[in-house]
Amino acid sequence: MKIIAGRYVVTMDAERRILEDAAVAIDKDRIVAVDTVETLRQRYPQCEEVGGGDFAILPGFVNSHMHLSCGLFRGYIDDMPLLEHDVRFLFPGQRAMNDRNVYQASLLSSVELLKSGCTTTADAYLRPQATARAMVDSGIRGIVSPAMMDTWLGGENGPLVSTTDGALREVRELREKYHGAGDGRISVWVNPFTDLSASPELMKASGDLARQWGCGVQIHLCETLEGVNIVKRRHGMRVFEYAESTGLFHDNLVVAAHCCWVSEPDIAIMKKHKIAVAYCPSSESKMADGLPPVPRLLSDGVNVSIAIDATCVSNSADPLREAKLGAVLQKVTYPYDSEILPAEEALEMITTQPARALGLEDEVGSLDVGKKADVIAIRIDGPHFVPLLRTPRQTVINHLIYSASGRDVAHVFVDGKQLVRDGKPVHVDERQLVSDAQQEMMDFIQASGIGAEITQMKWGRHEVRRR
Amino acid sequence: MKIIAGRYVVTMDAERRILEDAAVAIDKDRIVAVDTVETLRQRYPQCEEVGGGDFAILPGFVNSHMHLSCGLFRGYIDDMPLLEHDVRFLFPGQRAMNDRNVYQASLLSSVELLKSGCTTTADAYLRPQATARAMVDSGIRGIVSPAMMDTWLGGENGPLVSTTDGALREVRELREKYHGAGDGRISVWVNPFTDLSASPELMKASGDLARQWGCGVQIHLCETLEGVNIVKRRHGMRVFEYAESTGLFHDNLVVAAHCCWVSEPDIAIMKKHKIAVAYCPSSESKMADGLPPVPRLLSDGVNVSIAIDATCVSNSADPLREAKLGAVLQKVTYPYDSEILPAEEALEMITTQPARALGLEDEVGSLDVGKKADVIAIRIDGPHFVPLLRTPRQTVINHLIYSASGRDVAHVFVDGKQLVRDGKPVHVDERQLVSDAQQEMMDFIQASGIGAEITQMKWGRHEVRRR
Repeated sequence: MKIIAGRYVVTMDAERRILEDAAVAIDKDRIVAVDTVETLRQRYPQCEEVGGGDFAILPGFVNSHMHLSCGLFRGYIDDMPLLEHDVRFLFPGQRAMNDRNVYQASLLSSVELLKSGCTTTADAYLRPQATARAMVDSGIRGIVSPAMMDTWLGGENGPLVSTTDGALREVRELREKYHGAGDGRISVWVNPFTDLSASPELMKASGDLARQWGCGVQIHLCETLEGVNIVKRRHGMRVFEYAESTGLFHDNLVVAAHCCWVSEPDIAIMKKHKIAVAYCPSSESKMADGLPPVPRLLSDGVNVSIAIDATCVSNSADPLREAKLGAVLQKVTYPYDSEILPAEEALEMITTQPARALGLEDEVGSLDVGKKADVIAIRIDGPHFVPLLRTPRQTVINHLIYSASGRDVAHVFVDGKQLVRDGKPVHVDERQLVSDAQQEMMDFIQASGIGAEITQMKWGRHEVRRR
Repeated sequence: MKIIAGRYVVTMDAERRILEDAAVAIDKDRIVAVDTVETLRQRYPQCEEVGGGDFAILPGFVNSHMHLSCGLFRGYIDDMPLLEHDVRFLFPGQRAMNDRNVYQASLLSSVELLKSGCTTTADAYLRPQATARAMVDSGIRGIVSPAMMDTWLGGENGPLVSTTDGALREVRELREKYHGAGDGRISVWVNPFTDLSASPELMKASGDLARQWGCGVQIHLCETLEGVNIVKRRHGMRVFEYAESTGLFHDNLVVAAHCCWVSEPDIAIMKKHKIAVAYCPSSESKMADGLPPVPRLLSDGVNVSIAIDATCVSNSADPLREAKLGAVLQKVTYPYDSEILPAEEALEMITTQPARALGLEDEVGSLDVGKKADVIAIRIDGPHFVPLLRTPRQTVINHLIYSASGRDVAHVFVDGKQLVRDGKPVHVDERQLVSDAQQEMMDFIQASGIGAEITQMKWGRHEVRRR
């Protein structure tokens, strides 16, 4: 048993209570009480106490969309559009990687997520067994699914990696081996990667499997305008109309990533099937994909969460930084409204909203008695937390979203186990991990030759020219 | 004498050299050599060495636009539009503050900037002598100028704070007392606050003073569409046309903040007078002001830097975070181009570009022999710096801009003096400073009643409603 105490406990419960000088009591893998520190000390007198007055206690953040192993491509394929990025570099690169590479990358990403306070993540990519193994070893909670691709609508040299049967075999094997692994922390979902890379047959079979297993579906939809037009030309339908026609959506829990180019008919279908959107601000903006119309979606009751995506695109795996970016990007977009997506709502989009999107709302996303002991303690004693006010309004939420970052996260518990202490991973030798991953990637790039043509630095000629 | 060594020295010199296993040698307040560690060790055998293989060495960041004392309003007037924010809360709030409040807030902001690697900042606001004193005490380098306001075009109850003569008297007194203070680190500029709050007479007198003193001009122009229209109705001219007609621009160094709503005739005037733009991504997006057309400006040779603005708007005082935001906001705006404002150019916009905008290009902004010893060391050994590659391309710049943040800054030198060591301020008791500023602000808000009407939390009703 442990008491995790803070100056504030930001519960994210149904009433959105923010308790002062309060704590969360955990026993094994569950939250057993949320109350004032005083009350909990009396109730559990001999209990070990973590945290204190310099901390805010929150539920661990939940990330509804990521590709953990893509982290190893971070930083050298920046500043280019999605199809060039994926088709020229990421897919061939990732295909050239082996299980050891993928394990290493996924372990590194898991540690990066945990250090930023993210205790649950979804993953969808190639060699998912290696990623699942890394997630189990890291202690993080999450969804794993294989990137199922059996076709390619985007032109020649696409990322086709399997036959329909091969893709279905892979997800069955993954499900058998990893569903419920890590003391129940890991779930396996289906993932027809995108409407551009999964045939109608694979879409339908994925939907059937999800219904049979009672699991969810991850998919990328309407990420780029180009992709929307390709589907329209090929199938004569808008993306959501087409995906619906395959039978993928019926009665399924679906998380659709991006949805930047949805139109009103798409939104009607999203609403009908209760499809959740994973809005990935860093990657959608950095790729110049466009942005999902978040206020429009929310007004129709669509679940929107803010997610990390692959760090070869978003570069940073920090839910708090992503939440600020997600908020301000919407404010400066049509309809240019500074009141759209306030700090409080942004916090919901990395806690309660993604928990619901992933079907884990009874387990994570808020500090409620009976839920999993996924709890984080964030330092609030730095200069960037001044002024920390109760009146005229509570400012801790605003500071967390707009000023703080994952670097303020000090302690992280998943299933009641402390995985990060004072900002450092507990169960992993971080220096060794970084050094191994670094070596792995240098060897891999050397051997594979992937990206050999990217040698030019992109210094702006504007300033230099004027010297 | 000291050697500041790193795995990389990112010089930002004219050739944009990135030296490996290199160092910067400093003597008193100047850079005396930039070379490999090996060479410098031989040349200065007994010299103290800071840094090492886990660091990248860069010039201190330069912030071309901020209001340091506004930091004390951070977090409780978020998510509202500019004129409501400024006229209802910020201006009355700041006017109610006394010199002690302003000193405290400015000292806190200076420390926050230094910790994020920002060694030079511009400031423009009320009670500038208190801010100047705090900047001197903190050790930061910078420009100070009073917010000169003698009129208000935006309706009743504007922020009028002075007569024309009063505003001019204030800047003269500031100049006399603080120009060259802090061993020459502080310069005093003029600052007719905005075209909405300075009369044509004050604009002209400001321009005359700047020419007489050989100093620069700070001003806010074209921040909101509303403001542009107000000026057009009142003066029958677009903003830059009007400002030019007052005589403010002629032969002066001018930094215009925001410039979100410039049109082609404005840009022609900016180009003619070599006006520099301070692009403030966090505040322009969070306020839903709009965004300056940065690629358009660059294509005409306009100097654009990425700046922090007041942390009651931007919330975070971190040039690296601001640089990422500045880049991705442009990519997702017209013309939707992922190649626009690449990482390298974003780094220029927090180093060489603002140094030039502030007329300090011979002193700061790059690691060149003879420049001021304003040098920072950034840790590059975390998981978010993997993979750190030399081939197929150098990735350290991409990681710095897109993945890292000011929290990775370990050591900061200004004028050769170490002000931050291992991420902690050296000359200031940070805990005491935070605690004093916190108390100061709570007392102030209590006494002034400013913001008493802001009590409602803005939890999104979307998710809660569906429970």
